[in-house]
Amino acid sequence: MKNAIGMVGLGRMGANMARRLHQGGAQVVVYNRHVDKAEALARESGMAAAGTLEALVAALPSPRVLWLMLPAGDATQSHIDALLPLLSAGDVLVNGANAQHETSIAQAAHVEQAGVRYVDAGVSGGVWGLQEGYALMVGGSREAVAAVAPFLRILAPAPDQGWLHCGPVGSGHFVKMVHNGIEYGMMQALAEGFAILKGKEAFHLDLAQVAEMWRHGSVVRSWLLDLSADFLKKDQALDSIAPVVADSGEGLWTAQAALDLKIPAPVITLALQMRWASQGHADYTARMLAMMRNEFGGHAVQKEA
Amino acid sequence: MKNAIGMVGLGRMGANMARRLHQGGAQVVVYNRHVDKAEALARESGMAAAGTLEALVAALPSPRVLWLMLPAGDATQSHIDALLPLLSAGDVLVNGANAQHETSIAQAAHVEQAGVRYVDAGVSGGVWGLQEGYALMVGGSREAVAAVAPFLRILAPAPDQGWLHCGPVGSGHFVKMVHNGIEYGMMQALAEGFAILKGKEAFHLDLAQVAEMWRHGSVVRSWLLDLSADFLKKDQALDSIAPVVADSGEGLWTAQAALDLKIPAPVITLALQMRWASQGHADYTARMLAMMRNEFGGHAVQKEA
Repeated sequence: MKNAIGMVGLGRMGANMARRLHQGGAQVVVYNRHVDKAEALARESGMAAAGTLEALVAALPSPRVLWLMLPAGDATQSHIDALLPLLSAGDVLVNGANAQHETSIAQAAHVEQAGVRYVDAGVSGGVWGLQEGYALMVGGSREAVAAVAPFLRILAPAPDQGWLHCGPVGSGHFVKMVHNGIEYGMMQALAEGFAILKGKEAFHLDLAQVAEMWRHGSVVRSWLLDLSADFLKKDQALDSIAPVVADSGEGLWTAQAALDLKIPAPVITLALQMRWASQGHADYTARMLAMMRNEFGGHAVQKEA
Repeated sequence: MKNAIGMVGLGRMGANMARRLHQGGAQVVVYNRHVDKAEALARESGMAAAGTLEALVAALPSPRVLWLMLPAGDATQSHIDALLPLLSAGDVLVNGANAQHETSIAQAAHVEQAGVRYVDAGVSGGVWGLQEGYALMVGGSREAVAAVAPFLRILAPAPDQGWLHCGPVGSGHFVKMVHNGIEYGMMQALAEGFAILKGKEAFHLDLAQVAEMWRHGSVVRSWLLDLSADFLKKDQALDSIAPVVADSGEGLWTAQAALDLKIPAPVITLALQMRWASQGHADYTARMLAMMRNEFGGHAVQKEA
């Protein structure tokens, strides 16, 4: 069995990456904590499914390549802890979750004590990756990355495009973290601009047409604009969408890294803080301000309904 | 002479737009205040050149279409003032410079008093427009835009892509202004991200390779990233580039429009302010801070060399 890889974690990212690897000719064995997901994917695609981590490890030829695509933190760490005693020297563990690079460096040190190789991989591309390929940022030793390279070539948009051995362990997750920080800033800039267009009611602008026009020849043309044009075509009022934006860590980590390095990153940091404001975390500040105005000027305050 | 257009102002934008119109089959008559520029372009391309505004107007069939591609403000206004007495009812003046939409609306009212039609056109695409086509945002009446449409179809990346009749007079320049505001924010986000990567010296990241990798499959893929990848390939230290970023008005206008509309646009506004800081406009603030620290804590201040 050549070109074999085990995929651990079959969420939206993991399942689609397994599909792309399988379609690209890799021998994929899939594993998920809830075995039904693995079995469903196996039935759909003809990949092999393993019911236990032991079965997964047994199904792979040495040196094994195992790609973990699990939520960052405990889920990833507990699977590494469970896998490590089952693996042999020379096997390679890829952590494809988003993580702070310090965590990955510590994780790698732990894994490498057992003679197992470690690669930190940042994966970008979201739900479109299956079709268009993923951008992959990997960190680790030359040997470890060489073992993973055949799979990177399949996962990327083209064998020689969209993946990079960035540097030592931690550098893959670091570059991916900064990528997501940039994404926060670009998204906020685009969203603010469309909000200004929407606010200019006198012009009755068709935001879907503006977005579509900007996709061709403008300076702001970008994949994020492509996606915006797509959803604005269906609905540009967005009244049914709650004005709440989640954040999943990488923007915060980027802001923290910028602080650690003393590199000003005000726009990325502010884009993150605007998400927090959208989640209600600026409400106490607003209440304080309302009360101060009330105290010094007798200005009315609104009461919470 | 069908499909005839006069191009007034042959700077980088105007000259390339004339070339693209000529290559696309339009009959282009070019005019520039310094006639050598018009004559050189005519020699190079086979377009016609006019030595005076009178000659330009005389060379065009009625109803005439004249596209002004001049610096915003006085240069544009003085050419409109000089042209207006030479034109006839039904002729169309296109103002392709960046401008605040209020200015364009006032300009249109003045022009239309003479029976001449007015179109405000925002043009994006920079020096790459000749090759890739321009994104064009136009405002004006249906009749005025219809007269200009044959030329928009040539200037745009494709006849039915990358140009939009946004709405009434002023809306073209408004949409272009917001486009540029978004551009400020996206640029700042990208630049901050690369600065963080550069600041992480332990990883010795190759920023040119990172940029190139992100171009394929990542969420931040964009034309601005394409351009960044291009210049980083040649030099990623950037030591020879002064850390000073100019701004030419549209970012400021976007921030002002956001204030007028009471739409928060913090990231676009901050991106603008970071450019001002790069120009030294935050220096007095920094001097004030240094002196305050000196006063309350006896902290040393640096003396200007």
